[in-house]
Amino acid sequence: MRFAALVEQLQASQSWGDGDLEIQGIAAIDSASPGTLSYADSDRFSAQIQATQASALILPKNAALQQLATAQGIAWIESAYPRLTFAQALDVFYQPHQPAAQIHPTAVIDPTAKLGANVAVGAHTVIAANVVIGDGVAIWPNVVIYPEAQIGDRTLLHANCVIQERSQIGTDCVINSGSIVGGEGFGYVPTEQGWYKMQQSGYVVLEDRVEIGCNCTIDRPAVGETRLGHDTILDNMVHIGHGCTIGFGCAMASQAALAGGVVVGNRVIIAGQVGVANNVKLRDGSTVSSRSGVHHDTKPGQTVSGYPAVDHSIYLKSSAIYKRLPEMYQTLRRIKRHLGLD
Amino acid sequence: MRFAALVEQLQASQSWGDGDLEIQGIAAIDSASPGTLSYADSDRFSAQIQATQASALILPKNAALQQLATAQGIAWIESAYPRLTFAQALDVFYQPHQPAAQIHPTAVIDPTAKLGANVAVGAHTVIAANVVIGDGVAIWPNVVIYPEAQIGDRTLLHANCVIQERSQIGTDCVINSGSIVGGEGFGYVPTEQGWYKMQQSGYVVLEDRVEIGCNCTIDRPAVGETRLGHDTILDNMVHIGHGCTIGFGCAMASQAALAGGVVVGNRVIIAGQVGVANNVKLRDGSTVSSRSGVHHDTKPGQTVSGYPAVDHSIYLKSSAIYKRLPEMYQTLRRIKRHLGLD
Amino acid sequence: MRFAALVEQLQASQSWGDGDLEIQGIAAIDSASPGTLSYADSDRFSAQIQATQASALILPKNAALQQLATAQGIAWIESAYPRLTFAQALDVFYQPHQPAAQIHPTAVIDPTAKLGANVAVGAHTVIAANVVIGDGVAIWPNVVIYPEAQIGDRTLLHANCVIQERSQIGTDCVINSGSIVGGEGFGYVPTEQGWYKMQQSGYVVLEDRVEIGCNCTIDRPAVGETRLGHDTILDNMVHIGHGCTIGFGCAMASQAALAGGVVVGNRVIIAGQVGVANNVKLRDGSTVSSRSGVHHDTKPGQTVSGYPAVDHSIYLKSSAIYKRLPEMYQTLRRIKRHLGLD
Repeated sequence: MRFAALVEQLQASQSWGDGDLEIQGIAAIDSASPGTLSYADSDRFSAQIQATQASALILPKNAALQQLATAQGIAWIESAYPRLTFAQALDVFYQPHQPAAQIHPTAVIDPTAKLGANVAVGAHTVIAANVVIGDGVAIWPNVVIYPEAQIGDRTLLHANCVIQERSQIGTDCVINSGSIVGGEGFGYVPTEQGWYKMQQSGYVVLEDRVEIGCNCTIDRPAVGETRLGHDTILDNMVHIGHGCTIGFGCAMASQAALAGGVVVGNRVIIAGQVGVANNVKLRDGSTVSSRSGVHHDTKPGQTVSGYPAVDHSIYLKSSAIYKRLPEMYQTLRRIKRHLGLD
Repeated sequence: MRFAALVEQLQASQSWGDGDLEIQGIAAIDSASPGTLSYADSDRFSAQIQATQASALILPKNAALQQLATAQGIAWIESAYPRLTFAQALDVFYQPHQPAAQIHPTAVIDPTAKLGANVAVGAHTVIAANVVIGDGVAIWPNVVIYPEAQIGDRTLLHANCVIQERSQIGTDCVINSGSIVGGEGFGYVPTEQGWYKMQQSGYVVLEDRVEIGCNCTIDRPAVGETRLGHDTILDNMVHIGHGCTIGFGCAMASQAALAGGVVVGNRVIIAGQVGVANNVKLRDGSTVSSRSGVHHDTKPGQTVSGYPAVDHSIYLKSSAIYKRLPEMYQTLRRIKRHLGLD
Repeated sequence: MRFAALVEQLQASQSWGDGDLEIQGIAAIDSASPGTLSYADSDRFSAQIQATQASALILPKNAALQQLATAQGIAWIESAYPRLTFAQALDVFYQPHQPAAQIHPTAVIDPTAKLGANVAVGAHTVIAANVVIGDGVAIWPNVVIYPEAQIGDRTLLHANCVIQERSQIGTDCVINSGSIVGGEGFGYVPTEQGWYKMQQSGYVVLEDRVEIGCNCTIDRPAVGETRLGHDTILDNMVHIGHGCTIGFGCAMASQAALAGGVVVGNRVIIAGQVGVANNVKLRDGSTVSSRSGVHHDTKPGQTVSGYPAVDHSIYLKSSAIYKRLPEMYQTLRRIKRHLGLD
């Protein structure tokens, strides 16, 4: 693609360089080869701008960086949000493979299932009774959809994921491979004869534009629903326990887990390997640092860290001192001796 | 269902209300609508009883709660174990979808496999050589059963789980979607040329009524067996390393993991995201708190917490003081200055 | 197999026992029955040698242990590395089931895919457009291989794993069941309208002899590659974030996770449930203890532990003192009172 066409497509406010320059692809600034477009976000990138082989860069409104690029003969495009513009440039050069909009003859589809227009159903995918599939849904091979599930328009199901009974999935969602939506919550009543299984008559709701990574599990509850709000995104191996309610615009990183009945507000960020205990409430805009274990409700906008999780400012101080515990212990002994308190 | 019929079916000792009242379903007390049955466990529920829209409640032997419900005109059923009775009521109103007891024509079943009576085999399920399937087994689609595995009567295999070679699964078990039973243990011998793979010639045994959540992994060992005792239940994403032995009636919550050769007694509770190191022994009735890392054997009935895990009473004290480390550090400096010890 | 033949096959330097002794299998020393071969590694095993029912043992060059076995009438084979020789003996007696080298008629293979010689493709496996499969590759049922992926000679894919688009897998690799190679990295740009998805145009490279356990996830990056070096092995449920680079001969235990862009050197050992933060570098030969959370680069050969991870020597001291925090706190109060500092 010509540089001039790219500038236009990305609606750049400012740019510099030869409009006829041919841009063939996208790369990271460190490993870019001639003919590629990359990006730089801040002054931290100046050394990389001097060393890069990229032919063009997306740059912030930063005169020093822009001059540096110009001096190197590197074409540039100005953006208020270089990383966002880089993502938009990726869309120009790359689209992931999609299954063709046809029903593969080996798919097994119950006659009571309703399929919308332009649906792709991959080989060996199984769609059970009374399932409703929206328009433009794309399903890779070996997916299993249990009875009465609903899949909204344009939602994408990757190979080998499972949508269990009565799950309600919105429009424009992505469920990646190996994830299980709507499995039974872990509900048992202890009795003298052993565990009495509590049937999970509830269901899972994923609102529009929810994206679920690979090998996640989102459980349905005994009664009621487990709900993920619109525009919420999960990384791989995230577990959502039965009866959780998650707001919109949240993100959960890899291997994070919510126990049962957790209530998560809007725009909450949960980092990797976090655990949140039963029925805890994470308020709007709060953040949980990686590997924290949360037993108490957070305040709106609060960042919590550690196990048990405390306010991040307290955590920072305590964890810094943790390394000094041996020194503190020795000091205490010395003082006790000094004072004759032993 | 008429309230009177429900009272009879649940074998209630006491009840109050119009026997002709029609109960249409089950709900949580907070979100119940008219015509539903819910439950309350203790005095903590009194505000909820006053606010609920439920038409009937399961209540403990608690005169105050029962009077409260009566005063609200809410029918009630007395139970010594309200949550258990609630689970029994769920059984009345709801049963999960089950695959029909037939062999789907797209299933691929080796001619040497033996299937019992009334077996359901879902679409595209593959059953390899010399597998033995008991009576009433129900298998969802896209399951793969490797050679020589055995599946006991009435066991339920959800879509896309894998039972690897020679696994022995008892009666009335549940293996949920995406779980892998009998995969190779992580056994390699370090050599100067790299890792030498130790073949895993052992196998996995799940005794009767074991339930495995979604996306779990239960590995077979180099020699001997990995065994889960009867009535033991696992949540999602639980990992059981090669050669572990788990007793009966245990429970492991989401993302908990046992390394190799761990020995777990009977009725042991392991909370979420716990890790247990190689060859540790968890004695009968012990409990491991969430996110703990256990390196030492527990005593019978002991609760351990933290990383490294210690007795819960010690953990509580130490973790409470963790937040005060900065204050302690400042105090120490002050004392040293005061004493001229710097 | 006759003991004499086994001695020859294992190329033992020394041995003792009746060459006609029939060895029928392999067992752990604790649970061995007559006719089996087991091993002992060190003096710690002397009691077990006295109690074992094994008919033959692999022993180190240790006169005391060898005399003990001889006195018990137990045949023995000497080895400088008994556990390695035990692994080699396992190869003699046991090989895991392999799918037959044929294309199952229910497999769905795109006409543009290229398959090598002697390839096994299991039932219902799906191979998409432009996939290249080497000689001797063995694929169990219900595997899905996305477009343009490459699978090297003799690589083994277990049932229900998924190889997503453009992944490049080397020779003699093993991908176990439920693992997802080449799924989209977790890349989104926050905007006022929500998360803008950054397409993941990169791909995953697994070099030769990489082994991946069950239910792992290895993500592809936005640009460039995610690479695992030759002879690197992963246990179950390991997560590798987008853009990570891992050297050769590394091992990662169950539920360990690398965030994005982590750089791991050669022969690095990462224990179970570890988390490594974005862009951290783990140098050659370093070790991360179980459940650690690593935020800072390690030095070559260093062992780090804890959260936040510190040098293991510091961790050992601090974690030992952790249990004494309540005592330290009381002592501090006592000193303050003594000095009138309250």
